[in-house]
Amino acid sequence: MTLSQALSELSALLGDRLSRSPSDLALHGANEAHFAPTPPDAVAYPATTAEVAEIMRICARNGCPVTPWGTGTSLEGHALPIRGGLTVDFSRMNRVLEVRAEDMVAVVQPGVTREALNTELRATGLFFPVDPGANASLGGMASTRASGTTAVRYGTMRDNVLALEVVLADGRVIRTGTAAPKSSAGYDLTGLFVGAEGTLGLITELTLRLQGQPEAVAAAVCAFPDMTSAVETVITTIQSGLPMARIEFLDTATAAAVNAHSQAGLPEQPHLLVEFHGSDAAVAEQSERFGAIVADAGGEGFRWATRPEERNALWKMRHNAYYACLALRPGARAVITDVCVPISRLAEAVEETAADIAASGIPGPILGHVGDGNFHALLLASPDDAAEMAEAARLAKRMAERALRLGGTVTGEHGIGMGKLGYMEAEHGAAWDVMGTLKAALDPQNLLNPGKLVRQ
Amino acid sequence: MTLSQALSELSALLGDRLSRSPSDLALHGANEAHFAPTPPDAVAYPATTAEVAEIMRICARNGCPVTPWGTGTSLEGHALPIRGGLTVDFSRMNRVLEVRAEDMVAVVQPGVTREALNTELRATGLFFPVDPGANASLGGMASTRASGTTAVRYGTMRDNVLALEVVLADGRVIRTGTAAPKSSAGYDLTGLFVGAEGTLGLITELTLRLQGQPEAVAAAVCAFPDMTSAVETVITTIQSGLPMARIEFLDTATAAAVNAHSQAGLPEQPHLLVEFHGSDAAVAEQSERFGAIVADAGGEGFRWATRPEERNALWKMRHNAYYACLALRPGARAVITDVCVPISRLAEAVEETAADIAASGIPGPILGHVGDGNFHALLLASPDDAAEMAEAARLAKRMAERALRLGGTVTGEHGIGMGKLGYMEAEHGAAWDVMGTLKAALDPQNLLNPGKLVRQ
Repeated sequence: MTLSQALSELSALLGDRLSRSPSDLALHGANEAHFAPTPPDAVAYPATTAEVAEIMRICARNGCPVTPWGTGTSLEGHALPIRGGLTVDFSRMNRVLEVRAEDMVAVVQPGVTREALNTELRATGLFFPVDPGANASLGGMASTRASGTTAVRYGTMRDNVLALEVVLADGRVIRTGTAAPKSSAGYDLTGLFVGAEGTLGLITELTLRLQGQPEAVAAAVCAFPDMTSAVETVITTIQSGLPMARIEFLDTATAAAVNAHSQAGLPEQPHLLVEFHGSDAAVAEQSERFGAIVADAGGEGFRWATRPEERNALWKMRHNAYYACLALRPGARAVITDVCVPISRLAEAVEETAADIAASGIPGPILGHVGDGNFHALLLASPDDAAEMAEAARLAKRMAERALRLGGTVTGEHGIGMGKLGYMEAEHGAAWDVMGTLKAALDPQNLLNPGKLVRQ
Repeated sequence: MTLSQALSELSALLGDRLSRSPSDLALHGANEAHFAPTPPDAVAYPATTAEVAEIMRICARNGCPVTPWGTGTSLEGHALPIRGGLTVDFSRMNRVLEVRAEDMVAVVQPGVTREALNTELRATGLFFPVDPGANASLGGMASTRASGTTAVRYGTMRDNVLALEVVLADGRVIRTGTAAPKSSAGYDLTGLFVGAEGTLGLITELTLRLQGQPEAVAAAVCAFPDMTSAVETVITTIQSGLPMARIEFLDTATAAAVNAHSQAGLPEQPHLLVEFHGSDAAVAEQSERFGAIVADAGGEGFRWATRPEERNALWKMRHNAYYACLALRPGARAVITDVCVPISRLAEAVEETAADIAASGIPGPILGHVGDGNFHALLLASPDDAAEMAEAARLAKRMAERALRLGGTVTGEHGIGMGKLGYMEAEHGAAWDVMGTLKAALDPQNLLNPGKLVRQ
C-alpha cells in the first residue's frame, strides 16, 4: 500500500496514458489564481468510466489521493493536488454521447467543454445556457456549481444538471437522477455531487438540460450617473418581472479598461449590459419597458444591439473584461473576489466595497452578474510588493465578511477551492460539520481531492 | 433509555402539548392513502425551534423514533410512525416570520400552509407558486419535494426553497443556505433535506423564493380527438418555447367525472387545461400561438378564461378532479399512481397505461402535469374485493415499471413514503446504497422517520 505500488498498477492499466513527464506534472500543478504550484505525482488520462473506476480502486487499495481535472480554468485552485498523488485529467473523455432534442437534454462526458457542446448543438435549435466565461469543461462546471452571465434567466449548474454518473471513492459506479424533468424518489444525489468540487466522487457522465434558441435576442448597453442608480435599475427590473436573460454590471474602472482593451468607446461611467430572449414581440416589449426603467433612473447613452455581430461584440467585450482589467496594470496579479448577497443588500454591498477599494489605493474594478446579487472585484496588486498583496488580501477578506454580514455567501459561483476554505466556518457554522460528516461517510480514506471543502 | 422515560421527559418539557389522547394518536396514525393505520405512542406540539431541538435530544437519549407531521395530506403514508414513538406535529409552528418583498423571499415556520402563506402575501404583489393541490404545510411540501400544476413554469420545492433551519438527529440546529439567489459554498445541504421525507432532520424554518403576480393571466381548456393528439400538443408547445405557467391533461374518464361532479360541461374527450402568465401583450401572443398548435393537432372547443372568476372555476375543477374521480365509483378506494417520464416517452407511457387499465376492467381515470412528463392514474377498486385490489396493485406496479423502462421515475411529486420503497432498488441501484450511507451518517440510531426511504 504505497504510492509507488499505485503508480505501477496504474501504469499497467493505462500504459502511456499515465504520465509522469515534468511538463504534465507542472501543468496539473498550476492554477489560474495566485496559489503556489503543487504538482501531482502522476497524471492519468482515462478514456472510459470503467477505467476511471479501476483507477479509483487501485488508488483506494494503495491510499493514493485522487484529484480530478477538467480544463484548469477554476479561479480558486480547486484542482491543485495539494496532498500529491494522482490527477485524473478528463480531457480524453470528451464525447457528446447523445442529444435528445425532443427531451431537450444532452448526455456528455465530463471533458466536453461548454463551447464544444454548443458547437455540436448548433443544428438542433437548442443550446446549453450556462456561461461562466471561460471555456470550461462541463464536469468541472458541475463540480464548482458554475453559473455566469445567463444564470438570472436559466439558472446555475444546480438547475441544469438532471442526472450524473459518478465513480465513488471505492470504485463503485452509480447513476443519480433520470432524464425525466423531475422526481421525488429519494435524496437528491445529483444536487449533492454538483458543487462538491470532486471531494465526493468523480463525475464520468452528465445529463444536461438544454434550452431552445430564442426566436429573437436584443442586447443593450447603458450608462448611469453613478453606481447606485445602476444597481437600483437592476432591482426595479427584477421586481417588475421582466425576464432578463442577462444583466451585467461594469463600474467606471471596468468601462475604462474595456475601452483601452477593446476600443469599446463606452462613456467612463457605471454601465449595465442587458439581454432579452423571446419572441420578436416579447423582446420588443421587454426592451421598451427596460428602457423606461433606465430613463427613470437617469441612465443614458442607451444602445440596442439586435444584429448577431453587434451582440457578439458586446458579450465578447464582457468576457474579455477580466483581461482588460489585468491590462490596466501590467505585471499586476488579480486577486479575484466573488461575493453574492440578497438583492436588497446589493447596492450597499457594491458601494461599501467600492469605497473600501478607493481608500486602499489599489486598482479594483468591480463587475458582476448583478441580477443574481453576485459581483466581483479584481484587485490588482503587484506580486513583488508584499504590502500591496497584503492590502489586496485584506480587501478581499473584508468583502467576504461584508457579504456574510449582509446575509449572503462568500462565493456566488467560483467555489471554495483553496481560497474560501477559511470562511466556511463563518458562513455555515455547524452545517459545515455536517458537510464533513457526509464527506467522511462517502470517502472514509479522504482520497478524493483531499484538503478541500470540509474542515481539515 | 426507554420509551416511557422519553415520554416522561417530553411531558415535563411540553406539558399538555404532549398528547396521548386516543383521538390524537388515531389522527396521527391515519393517512390519505390505503395503508394500515399505525398510531404513534405520543404526539408533541412544539412551538419553537429550541423545543424541537430539546425533543430531539430527549428522543436521542432514549432511543425513541421521531416522525414529523405537517397536515397529513401526503399520498404515500410518509408520516406514518411505523415503528411507533413520537410524532412531532408542526401545526403550532405556523407563523410567517418575515416577508422580504425586495428580495422576493419569505421566511416561514414549517406548519404554515401554502394557502396561508399566499393569503398573507396578497397585499405584496408576490405569491408562492408551488401548488400540489392539497393545502399542505410548507415543511411537508419541502420534505416530499412537492410540485403540482405550476412546476412547468416555476419549478418544484427543490427550486423554491433557498435555505432551511434543520434540527438534526442529535438535537443540533443547523442553517443551510442563505437568502442570496445562488451560492457555490460547499455541498447543497438545502437540496439534501428537501425530499428527504423527514429521515435526515426536522425542518424548523424555510426561506422560500417568491414570484411576482403576473400582470396578465389567461387560461384555456380544449378538447382533443384522442389522447395522442393531446400529448403531442404538449410536446410541440414545450419545444416551441412557449412559457406555459400550467399545462394539465385530463383523459375522457376524468372529463366525465368532472362533468358529473362540477357540472363542467366538458365534451367527453381528452382535454388540456393551460395557463399563461406575463404582460398583456405576451399572454395574448402566447395564447394565439398555443391556439395554432392546438388547431394543428385537431383540438377543438377551445375556450379562453381571462376573468379571474372563470379561471378560478377552471382550476377549482382541476383541483377537485381527485374527488370527482372518487365519486365515479362510490365506496371505491383510489390507488393513486405518480409516474414521470422524459417528455419524448410521454405519449407512449400514457397510451400503454390507458390500454392496460382498459383491459383490466377497473376504472382508472388518467390526469397529470404533463408539461413535466408527470401523470397519475386513479385506480378505483372496491376495498372489499380482494381480486380488484390485487388488480389495482398490479396495474400500479406495471405503471411504475413502465416508467423505469422508459427512463423515468416511479414518483414525480408524491414521494416514496410507504408506497414506493419497493421500487427504490430498481430505480437507483447502487445509488440507493449511497442514500443509506448518508442516512446512517446523519442518523446513526435510525430515529428519524424510521422504516422510510432507505433500505431497511
